[in-house]
Amino acid sequence: MKTSGENILGYNLSSIGKAVFFAKNPATGNQLETPYHEATLEEINQAITLAENAFTLYREKTGEEKALFLETIAKELLQIEEELVGLCAQETGLPDGRLKGELGRTTGQLKLFATVLRDGSWVDARVDEADPNRTPFPKPDIRQMQIALGPVGVFGASNFPLAFSVAGGDTASALAAGCTVVVKAHPAHPGTSELVGTAIVSAAKRCNMPDGVFSLVQGPSIAVGQAIVRNPLIKAIGFTGSFRGGKALFDEAAKREEPIPVYAEMGSVNPVFVLPGILKENHQTLAEGLSNSVQLGAGQFCTNPGITVLPKLEESSLFEDTLKNSIATSTSTTMLTEAIQGAYSHGLEKLKTKKEVASIATGNKAEGQAQGVAEVLSVSASNFLADKELEEEVFGPSTLLVQTTNKNEIMEIAKSLNGHLTATVHGTQEDLQEYAGLLKILERKVGRVLINGFPTGVEVCHSMVHGGPFPATTDARMTSVGTAAITRFTRPICYQNFPESLLPDELKTENPLSILRMENGKHVLP
Amino acid sequence: MKTSGENILGYNLSSIGKAVFFAKNPATGNQLETPYHEATLEEINQAITLAENAFTLYREKTGEEKALFLETIAKELLQIEEELVGLCAQETGLPDGRLKGELGRTTGQLKLFATVLRDGSWVDARVDEADPNRTPFPKPDIRQMQIALGPVGVFGASNFPLAFSVAGGDTASALAAGCTVVVKAHPAHPGTSELVGTAIVSAAKRCNMPDGVFSLVQGPSIAVGQAIVRNPLIKAIGFTGSFRGGKALFDEAAKREEPIPVYAEMGSVNPVFVLPGILKENHQTLAEGLSNSVQLGAGQFCTNPGITVLPKLEESSLFEDTLKNSIATSTSTTMLTEAIQGAYSHGLEKLKTKKEVASIATGNKAEGQAQGVAEVLSVSASNFLADKELEEEVFGPSTLLVQTTNKNEIMEIAKSLNGHLTATVHGTQEDLQEYAGLLKILERKVGRVLINGFPTGVEVCHSMVHGGPFPATTDARMTSVGTAAITRFTRPICYQNFPESLLPDELKTENPLSILRMENGKHVLP
Repeated sequence: MKTSGENILGYNLSSIGKAVFFAKNPATGNQLETPYHEATLEEINQAITLAENAFTLYREKTGEEKALFLETIAKELLQIEEELVGLCAQETGLPDGRLKGELGRTTGQLKLFATVLRDGSWVDARVDEADPNRTPFPKPDIRQMQIALGPVGVFGASNFPLAFSVAGGDTASALAAGCTVVVKAHPAHPGTSELVGTAIVSAAKRCNMPDGVFSLVQGPSIAVGQAIVRNPLIKAIGFTGSFRGGKALFDEAAKREEPIPVYAEMGSVNPVFVLPGILKENHQTLAEGLSNSVQLGAGQFCTNPGITVLPKLEESSLFEDTLKNSIATSTSTTMLTEAIQGAYSHGLEKLKTKKEVASIATGNKAEGQAQGVAEVLSVSASNFLADKELEEEVFGPSTLLVQTTNKNEIMEIAKSLNGHLTATVHGTQEDLQEYAGLLKILERKVGRVLINGFPTGVEVCHSMVHGGPFPATTDARMTSVGTAAITRFTRPICYQNFPESLLPDELKTENPLSILRMENGKHVLP
Repeated sequence: MKTSGENILGYNLSSIGKAVFFAKNPATGNQLETPYHEATLEEINQAITLAENAFTLYREKTGEEKALFLETIAKELLQIEEELVGLCAQETGLPDGRLKGELGRTTGQLKLFATVLRDGSWVDARVDEADPNRTPFPKPDIRQMQIALGPVGVFGASNFPLAFSVAGGDTASALAAGCTVVVKAHPAHPGTSELVGTAIVSAAKRCNMPDGVFSLVQGPSIAVGQAIVRNPLIKAIGFTGSFRGGKALFDEAAKREEPIPVYAEMGSVNPVFVLPGILKENHQTLAEGLSNSVQLGAGQFCTNPGITVLPKLEESSLFEDTLKNSIATSTSTTMLTEAIQGAYSHGLEKLKTKKEVASIATGNKAEGQAQGVAEVLSVSASNFLADKELEEEVFGPSTLLVQTTNKNEIMEIAKSLNGHLTATVHGTQEDLQEYAGLLKILERKVGRVLINGFPTGVEVCHSMVHGGPFPATTDARMTSVGTAAITRFTRPICYQNFPESLLPDELKTENPLSILRMENGKHVLP
């Protein structure tokens, strides 16, 4: 399947701009052949105007209609699995197996939102019936539910070219909410983006969705993203990427005449705390587990464990020996782009020039470009606490061991942390009892706390929180993974004294959709 | 009951600053006797540090304990009803009857949140159990719920000195959420604020709440508010007031190193659309209803109907005659402050100098200072559409009649509107059928749509939305009135692979609190 290199504006293709760019195979450094046209301001605004016009129709679609649309997108994607994985592997350097798994995650996510729409209860319907006899004033009839915000701008991420990109979690949840979507493709995988975008448009046509329910614009320039955020018809932004990129979007959005919500997931170092008891018992398994988690996907997961806090015990050296051995015998894999590999090397260099930081193990570099070579570094707790730079994310397959000598240091490190996506504690039952206070501190720092696991691997389910306090995200009140992500793109509205015939089905007295509601203060299941 | 004029920092009083200010009786223009000490930066930061320390304890309180605390605040307030209403009437010019009603609303609100806490289901608990046999990867155990954000800054409003002030909706919902609160008193009613703050502290002591769960700082300077928003320990802001004030807080919060949510309710003109059929049938009742709604509380309600869109019919003049007569025979009441009265007069003058705007009725000015004299103005639809300034709020007892000549103009006006708190449509069944599209447009503009009622009077219930798109508020995703307001001050967290003993009760497998939960994707009522 050849890609066109054009932008997808609703049901049409467009390439009026002169600026073109190319994807690159990170493993070879070779440029791929298709020229992609950067979207012009005119094209971007056209996509957004289409999205606004489509929104007035799309927001009226039933849950069933939207569910079918999401499921049809999943089907269309599975139909092009081979071409999609083939091109994506070229653009990202990620192995086929991983990409197939990621496609499964992407389609599974779309289908999961379809079940949420069919169930229908996600709108948080609330019905308070009138009481004309109440004194001193009669009680009016008021009914509340969530409705869609409007056209949403989504920025594809580089590190999950399927699951967090064009048809990823942001797009799936925004479409589920009833919003129309304009995606800015990540410039590292424009062909993958086009294939996925084409599949979405094909599904939209098959499901009779309005022209403009989805558009895809291409381009490496900052101007493309700015044009999306600045357009007054855009009502929310979804983003996964760097702190710099996410914060810039947040600042743009806050400066608009009408500020809008920005859901930027900007990464995290995902601290892992290993407590004394379990280190004694399990040092080998723990070291092997950590080594695997650090290297997963060349360390390019938002939930990569970048900091590991260790107690100083006799067994510590055994733990370190296992970890060193595992890392030293590892072979590098290709990172997503030259730039990401460059930033990784630069981040490691910056750490290693600090005299208080020691490198204790380095992996082997394989053939090919853009290799992410695993690395383990070490620093004392007191030095870690003295230098806030050591908490910055180094995106890639490395972890910094923070060596503590007592409980107090462990607690101080926890207290000193910025916001992160996850925090993990490894401990025996006794450890966890003794360190109950540690868990309470970590609760305030992250969106997900894990016990005796590793943070990589983000389950797509109803209870997942992939989010957390700033600077992990720009809005800790929301999650970007899991079904709760849908409410990022909605707001509540209430209807006062509406006749039955004018109420949405979700709020009609007879509850025709059979959804969970709060009726006169009581939750009622049909 | 004499007030001290001091700031309330947790369980202690403080007045180290030299700057003092006084309340004024708006009806007489006379200064009241107590000097109030403006809080210094040191005092404000001390209150916030206390709030942070208290938060680590208060967030662990059970729903029952927090419910008792809220109910005890209500009791304490009712015990000082007489003194409170007496002083508040002096500070605000509001009549005793209204203030007694407002106190009932305030205590009712606290009690309503207590029922929400006892029910416990508000935390949106989600349980996804592990499946170790799932392939290709085992499914982890993940459980999600809402937790409190941290210390919250609340800015008291002038127009509801009890219900939207020190123990008003923002404080009640923040305390219910598990947050500690630092209130900046509105400088127009410092004594009322102190009495209410003292009642809260008394309740906190009786309920063994930690020192710092609540503080109250005084002062008319912008610096006091800035110091609250800029303190890094503050994690959210609640505000009701002017656009200028709310937007300034929003901008400050967005500029922080760690941006935080600002819930600013900044007013609205609450457009009322009268459709042709009902105007014919009901012109007299409608005109009388509108006149009452416009004058309620000297027009100082956020939901005051500032714009009334009318069709041009034979009956229009009858409607206008009734309205004119009602307004022309009305007698003014005292506004909250000289400054508010001044801004009202200025706003009316600005409108009246526009040659396309005509004043068609003016009420009678009573004795006394700061009189809010009712006024009705009129403008053609085409002129209204041509001048965006005509949509600005004039805070006081006035409404601008917008005279339309056809359906298209009515629809164009709806489309042109900014975000507002409410929109109202008066229509017969036939009107509403013909103007179904109007309701769809208004849905996108406001937080509450009313049919055949008036927007003044905001029911405190589960389904109320007192909010709406910018510039009505800075966050349309939330409501500041009603029980849904609690989630303004929370965020989701998830626990992965936690042993039962370490899970919060809300998430334990046996559901010991008997709350509504989503279990493995299904809503389950105990």
